[in-house]
Amino acid sequence: MNTFGNKIKITVFGQSHAQAIGVTIEGLPTGLKVDTDRVQTFLDRRAPGKNTYSTQRQEADKVEYLSGLVDGVVCGAPLTAVIFNKDQHSKDYSELRAKMRPSHADYPANVKYGDSYDVRGGGQFSGRMTAPICIAGAILMQYLEEKGIYIGAHISSIGIIKDKMFDNTSFDTDMLLCAGKKDFPVLDDEAGEKMKELILAAKNDLDSVGGIIECMAVGVPAGIGEPMFEGLENVIAQSVFAIPAVKGLEFGLGFESSSLFGSQNNDEYYYDENSNVKTRTNNAGGICGGLATGMPISFKVAMKPTPSIGKAQNTVNLASGKNDVLEIHGRHDPCIVQRAVPCIEAAMALALSQFVL
Amino acid sequence: MNTFGNKIKITVFGQSHAQAIGVTIEGLPTGLKVDTDRVQTFLDRRAPGKNTYSTQRQEADKVEYLSGLVDGVVCGAPLTAVIFNKDQHSKDYSELRAKMRPSHADYPANVKYGDSYDVRGGGQFSGRMTAPICIAGAILMQYLEEKGIYIGAHISSIGIIKDKMFDNTSFDTDMLLCAGKKDFPVLDDEAGEKMKELILAAKNDLDSVGGIIECMAVGVPAGIGEPMFEGLENVIAQSVFAIPAVKGLEFGLGFESSSLFGSQNNDEYYYDENSNVKTRTNNAGGICGGLATGMPISFKVAMKPTPSIGKAQNTVNLASGKNDVLEIHGRHDPCIVQRAVPCIEAAMALALSQFVL
Amino acid sequence: MNTFGNKIKITVFGQSHAQAIGVTIEGLPTGLKVDTDRVQTFLDRRAPGKNTYSTQRQEADKVEYLSGLVDGVVCGAPLTAVIFNKDQHSKDYSELRAKMRPSHADYPANVKYGDSYDVRGGGQFSGRMTAPICIAGAILMQYLEEKGIYIGAHISSIGIIKDKMFDNTSFDTDMLLCAGKKDFPVLDDEAGEKMKELILAAKNDLDSVGGIIECMAVGVPAGIGEPMFEGLENVIAQSVFAIPAVKGLEFGLGFESSSLFGSQNNDEYYYDENSNVKTRTNNAGGICGGLATGMPISFKVAMKPTPSIGKAQNTVNLASGKNDVLEIHGRHDPCIVQRAVPCIEAAMALALSQFVL
Amino acid sequence: MNTFGNKIKITVFGQSHAQAIGVTIEGLPTGLKVDTDRVQTFLDRRAPGKNTYSTQRQEADKVEYLSGLVDGVVCGAPLTAVIFNKDQHSKDYSELRAKMRPSHADYPANVKYGDSYDVRGGGQFSGRMTAPICIAGAILMQYLEEKGIYIGAHISSIGIIKDKMFDNTSFDTDMLLCAGKKDFPVLDDEAGEKMKELILAAKNDLDSVGGIIECMAVGVPAGIGEPMFEGLENVIAQSVFAIPAVKGLEFGLGFESSSLFGSQNNDEYYYDENSNVKTRTNNAGGICGGLATGMPISFKVAMKPTPSIGKAQNTVNLASGKNDVLEIHGRHDPCIVQRAVPCIEAAMALALSQFVL
Repeated sequence: MNTFGNKIKITVFGQSHAQAIGVTIEGLPTGLKVDTDRVQTFLDRRAPGKNTYSTQRQEADKVEYLSGLVDGVVCGAPLTAVIFNKDQHSKDYSELRAKMRPSHADYPANVKYGDSYDVRGGGQFSGRMTAPICIAGAILMQYLEEKGIYIGAHISSIGIIKDKMFDNTSFDTDMLLCAGKKDFPVLDDEAGEKMKELILAAKNDLDSVGGIIECMAVGVPAGIGEPMFEGLENVIAQSVFAIPAVKGLEFGLGFESSSLFGSQNNDEYYYDENSNVKTRTNNAGGICGGLATGMPISFKVAMKPTPSIGKAQNTVNLASGKNDVLEIHGRHDPCIVQRAVPCIEAAMALALSQFVL
Repeated sequence: MNTFGNKIKITVFGQSHAQAIGVTIEGLPTGLKVDTDRVQTFLDRRAPGKNTYSTQRQEADKVEYLSGLVDGVVCGAPLTAVIFNKDQHSKDYSELRAKMRPSHADYPANVKYGDSYDVRGGGQFSGRMTAPICIAGAILMQYLEEKGIYIGAHISSIGIIKDKMFDNTSFDTDMLLCAGKKDFPVLDDEAGEKMKELILAAKNDLDSVGGIIECMAVGVPAGIGEPMFEGLENVIAQSVFAIPAVKGLEFGLGFESSSLFGSQNNDEYYYDENSNVKTRTNNAGGICGGLATGMPISFKVAMKPTPSIGKAQNTVNLASGKNDVLEIHGRHDPCIVQRAVPCIEAAMALALSQFVL
Repeated sequence: MNTFGNKIKITVFGQSHAQAIGVTIEGLPTGLKVDTDRVQTFLDRRAPGKNTYSTQRQEADKVEYLSGLVDGVVCGAPLTAVIFNKDQHSKDYSELRAKMRPSHADYPANVKYGDSYDVRGGGQFSGRMTAPICIAGAILMQYLEEKGIYIGAHISSIGIIKDKMFDNTSFDTDMLLCAGKKDFPVLDDEAGEKMKELILAAKNDLDSVGGIIECMAVGVPAGIGEPMFEGLENVIAQSVFAIPAVKGLEFGLGFESSSLFGSQNNDEYYYDENSNVKTRTNNAGGICGGLATGMPISFKVAMKPTPSIGKAQNTVNLASGKNDVLEIHGRHDPCIVQRAVPCIEAAMALALSQFVL
Repeated sequence: MNTFGNKIKITVFGQSHAQAIGVTIEGLPTGLKVDTDRVQTFLDRRAPGKNTYSTQRQEADKVEYLSGLVDGVVCGAPLTAVIFNKDQHSKDYSELRAKMRPSHADYPANVKYGDSYDVRGGGQFSGRMTAPICIAGAILMQYLEEKGIYIGAHISSIGIIKDKMFDNTSFDTDMLLCAGKKDFPVLDDEAGEKMKELILAAKNDLDSVGGIIECMAVGVPAGIGEPMFEGLENVIAQSVFAIPAVKGLEFGLGFESSSLFGSQNNDEYYYDENSNVKTRTNNAGGICGGLATGMPISFKVAMKPTPSIGKAQNTVNLASGKNDVLEIHGRHDPCIVQRAVPCIEAAMALALSQFVL
């Protein structure tokens, strides 16, 4: 199902080439003032066509509100926002229906949905479907900010080029939010330049490249979360894996902690000068037993390289029943990591808003 | 909430020192014959006290069925199975209530639940609560096997000692299930010996050590899964992060894929000799767009080192409101990775059973 | 929440005077061909302004499909359909915000939502919100018909004027569907004329009048339903009480059965000439233990008289904090029972579609 | 599914002759002190075997708590309580498996579950499964009382013998709770005597008789509830129809309101002497638009006569595939209305507790 959450329920609808894509949010606190300009600005961060690092498809992704807002204020009815699709290329999709693109959803979607599957532009599996998630995330981030919770993210790596890391023991929102204000969301702009070079190199080679995003939330109160299946990690994971191309997720030290001793990995508590309980390190990424420790929530997600590449690839042809060769033409991203940064922030917002009512 | 799943709903209850711990499973297919001996055998795989690598606590974890089974056959009513707790040490928990154990749930649980929180033996956050998950998993694995789906796992690493990996393009169930039959569940017993040495070294040093588990399912039909928030990755993640100490999860190549080019990472399709669609590689871990490709589902989880260690640690004392030093005495595992292997298999079973009805 | 169902999930959004009202349906079977003309025709049955018995508000309630359909066929993505609101009268709502209309949602909505509540035209509590339910119901009825399930309803009474009853031991779809094809949906047109007279009399008296609707579904296979909280009765009830003004619901003989002896009320089984199991009577309304018996599912709902009446009424004035007198002007229905008939059919369709996958 | 609720989730398990029946409650407020004696006393109100009006089966229904309580206080883990079954008669159930008891769940359960269905004592469809609901209800009523909410019910009629009605504009808890303290829960004991005579007459005639229960809750704050599918009426209905034999439900005037004019049915608001908003009448049963008005919540449920009667009945024999005659022997209730009174109160508690957190 395209639905997420219990307390604040998000339902995403649409396909890449449907008349519209959109989202319905139930359970928003009545009276919340939504700054729709900020929502639009946030959405623009994931927009394609901004520069040579992304697809050239020009989407006028203007958010329209169908319900739930009266004069910009949440009235208690479900909030539905949509983007009408405009830039669809009408073209022949018969090849795409026959030849399965490697590492896309095409083949399993064909098995699951049969011929009725909307193959145009990736249908409901298109990365375009992250736009409604960003709308919801942008609205929820405004709500979370009212509670003192701020979310930021940055590219942690593209290929083997690494950015600096967040200091996940710091509550400094300047650090947290700075990357999101840049065209290319990194902490270290020098590293960013090298990443861009790598993306261009991949593009020139008709190839693509993956990367890692680091995301963090500060201000999440200690004790937030539920045990077992609805812990913070479970719910963030359910949300984050909704972003296409995410193939891995780790909290705090994550995989690195598996090679450590307990005495190295444990986060010792202390009272700070204001008698607040903190930890010296934050290897747990702010979560123990599914509950927030009060330290920043931090995680990293691994994004595979975009599967749409220009190079010829072997695949199956369902029409002929034979092995075949596929060459994908047209517009695609050599790297979607930079565009996915706000999507990951939005996914974090969806998850956290389940716990902060 | 302690509830998982829509189609087959699992509700776990209990605390480490409650009268009982247990699980209710709703939605099991009526007529399913449950081999309760196999359930017990599966549960015994996570049992402590088997050897020097685990805690000495002797739990006679005998599964008792309260409802849902008639002569071993699922009758359509919810199946409830319990384990009565027997080996609780009655002791003074006032220190534990005051001094927060680093990297345990103690502190956030204290904030969330206040004084009513059951602190005995870790309460509802105890690793003991994986026993009901294993019961559910063992039952569901029998159901999945009827559908031709087999699940196996092994220790992929302890500290920096690595086991061999599963071949995730292979449907060979012998390979898949062999580790689960061993006392120490690895593929490469030589590596296993080194792991045991490392665990003992950690134990002697009053320390603990983490590790990685690889899990795989073969026979999952292509097309299984739901888009966006209920994809296989989302649901497996929700399940797997219910196992305490899991801090990372990656499907297929996972984080490694983030450093690759698309042409390296993409899994090319081909028709095999029986006209089945397969992929040459399985870097996607059998999942694209949240849907099963028909290849084995494979993932790895990172487990942090057990936070309970014998070394003295700095922490806060909530009773005094001051920084303090904690020394944890008594029985604990220097490593829980080997015991967690069946738990991870069970978590996989919980997730897959949501899609295979 | 405005969400209904697990297997087929319906999310309704909008307010009376929002830019649009609409519905998202998840879980529709892929490949289902939707006859959008029939959906529109069904929706028109609840349209106001058709005649003197209803409000004069002219709504051009044209259904537009934003997603989920490709060439009229369900593609697997959520189906979202909307109606853009056009006929809103901009006017001063300050009196409505102050003076609570008796037996409307105004007062509790004011307490719940505060000043942000959308008071225009009844906001999210408007009877207008049944239009999206009808869209969903019309689509689901097409799906149910593919399974051999037909749903019909008629006015059972207006005030004290009674229509004939359905024969709920009959599987005759002509009888079942005939009322729905009439402008005034009754079985007995003579009774219908008297009902109209009563409605006009109420209207002329600045008053309103209530009624009862009988609804039935034939072709529901025996065994459908779930025990306890998700029985047919539970789920139908959850759906039906979403229709404003419904204050009572009874299955089969309902309240009448409470005054009978078991020997009078029990439905004896028999094999018919085709060896199908049937019951001689159907006092149970086709449901025992929450499960379908295979006989027609039948229920009646009580609808209170429309609370909007022209007569002066005593009420509270929240602005002044004093008792006050309210006179409601403008367009309203002297009776909504005839318009609610398709809404009740739709509610039945929403409920049954949860069980028939 | 046997699960109810979102905020406070109730999962009921067991069958009439399973080893145990029980309930798990998730989401109870931590720190709630549970008076287990009062829970037992409440449960005893539904106990059979108390007198000649009920079945002679002697159930030692002693509640045992497996988890979630520490020294009688809710600790935050799910609370599981069970009753071990003791008084099962082992007997031959082959006739029951072949001959379908009219108006029982036997036949549809056979279709749904096949041979694996637990036919002993009605299995999971037994009225005995209301005992866990009563346990949950009794605990939740203690929680609701902390919030100032009190729930009471009484027999409104048995057959055609009527009790007095609650005054549903009154907040008097003495009136509300008095019937529940009596062996035979009526307001008017004279009417009660006639009811008992009618029950005995039915019993002597190998027959059974139905009735109506009126239930009311006072102290429910105005504004409680959610719109559309999760209004108070929807959720109460979902809960109440879980009680076997309930065939009808009406709020406030219910079906009677359908025959009235709006000017008769509308509940006019006024400020009382303490400036509280009240209504002169409460024909709405305290609910408008799914939300609480602040007036007492009142509803009536119709209960059909117990389908188990001693008289010979025609039915089908699934073993022979022929029509047959059934004579039911053994212990059964000539009337379950008096025993169902606490069950209905419990159902109300389950529903209200979803809204009062």
